[in-house]
Amino acid sequence: MEKQRIGIVGGVGPFAGIDLQQKIAMETAATVDQEHLAVVALSNPAEIVDRTAFLMGDTDENPGHAIAIQLLELERMGAAVAAIPCNTAHAPAIFDVILADLRQAGSQIRLLHMIRETAAYVKQVLPDAGTVGVLSTTGTRRVGLYPSLLGAAGIQVLAPDDGSQETLIQPAIYDESYGIKANGHATPRARADLERAIARLRHRGARAVLLGCTEIPLAFPERSFGGVPLVDPTRVLARALIAAVDEACLRPDPLLTPAH
Amino acid sequence: MEKQRIGIVGGVGPFAGIDLQQKIAMETAATVDQEHLAVVALSNPAEIVDRTAFLMGDTDENPGHAIAIQLLELERMGAAVAAIPCNTAHAPAIFDVILADLRQAGSQIRLLHMIRETAAYVKQVLPDAGTVGVLSTTGTRRVGLYPSLLGAAGIQVLAPDDGSQETLIQPAIYDESYGIKANGHATPRARADLERAIARLRHRGARAVLLGCTEIPLAFPERSFGGVPLVDPTRVLARALIAAVDEACLRPDPLLTPAH
Repeated sequence: MEKQRIGIVGGVGPFAGIDLQQKIAMETAATVDQEHLAVVALSNPAEIVDRTAFLMGDTDENPGHAIAIQLLELERMGAAVAAIPCNTAHAPAIFDVILADLRQAGSQIRLLHMIRETAAYVKQVLPDAGTVGVLSTTGTRRVGLYPSLLGAAGIQVLAPDDGSQETLIQPAIYDESYGIKANGHATPRARADLERAIARLRHRGARAVLLGCTEIPLAFPERSFGGVPLVDPTRVLARALIAAVDEACLRPDPLLTPAH
Repeated sequence: MEKQRIGIVGGVGPFAGIDLQQKIAMETAATVDQEHLAVVALSNPAEIVDRTAFLMGDTDENPGHAIAIQLLELERMGAAVAAIPCNTAHAPAIFDVILADLRQAGSQIRLLHMIRETAAYVKQVLPDAGTVGVLSTTGTRRVGLYPSLLGAAGIQVLAPDDGSQETLIQPAIYDESYGIKANGHATPRARADLERAIARLRHRGARAVLLGCTEIPLAFPERSFGGVPLVDPTRVLARALIAAVDEACLRPDPLLTPAH
């Protein structure tokens, strides 16, 4: 019997959708092609306006409608469980519209929530709570996505100072010359600026740092930096998707083993 | 007007399908998410038996039928042009079955041919002909895919010696411990063994080396090695797919500029 298919809304942004597919394949215990799970990824970014631009009021078009249309397409392609590898799209102003559109269309797809999955994961990594630094777009930061969901789980969130946000983090993601979105990988400048932002958070007491924008893990493939564990929501989401289809396919997670 | 969608048969193998999507995004001239092309990738590897195993006679099941079914699914998802990022699947014994099944189903999809696209590209890179070394699976090597199509273009193909094929190249791809398929990336041993195979081909007169199995470029992100240009059919295919949709979106190709 064919296992359930995983659906991915892949254009938000295109490299994040590819990174999620890569992490699903990497976190699956498989040694030959045929053991990998069935994944359908639709990347149609021209139809989805920038999520941060909407949250900042720069456009009235809610990207949630276009995302819901693509989820319905994925469902027609057989996807039973799906995810959107974009932190900002999980702001209630966008995510609630997606859920409403899916409900209205009678969709049966099981849509995972990237931020909730990550909050649950952080609680496993830091069972005795503590303070977690969060790197994100200005849009995600402004709506306080991670603080509200992590706070509810008893974990305190440390946001970068305004200077870090405006001169280091947001340009490392969006700058049209050295930003990750424009290059598809971390340029030396983007990496260096994000390293500085992480160092400042560590100085201010962060016991872990959450890479809360899907472009940021492209700059940090490592599991920790300067002694601080790095939590990658894209990897967390990949594992949650695999678990939703067949938990037995999951590779062990080094951040959750007793040795850590 | 929405541009034509690109379809990818992504499970052959899963990492090759992801690598093709990555290369489509990298070779597209885009600075924001919305400028990227629409791509739908279906990875359903459990349904497609190993292509080399079929060509070697280890199974009677022709993987072409399952590949055709997935191309028809991609067409229903709106794909107008499509590709299969697997060199071995382009052996006539498989590829002809795919074309026949598509024809019988009345498909209108435009299916690019990875090996023909690569042969045309090699002729552009080496306009005064010469000898090209080809690294591939034992299945692709046995059916002489590249020699026949490159030979028709006036380019002589140099195959690895039997020792290189059996002890270096095939295990670098397939070994269940250090092979690229089992790890999703090039382990140090796989990379080192492929380096030795390339060095032997260069010694025997190869003026360029073709990375003729989609797993091999995962070990060689660079455009040349030891002074020999490396031709990556996955990258060639990515560029051909972009050109099929909108040639104006292509980034310049450093291997084809006069400076090279």
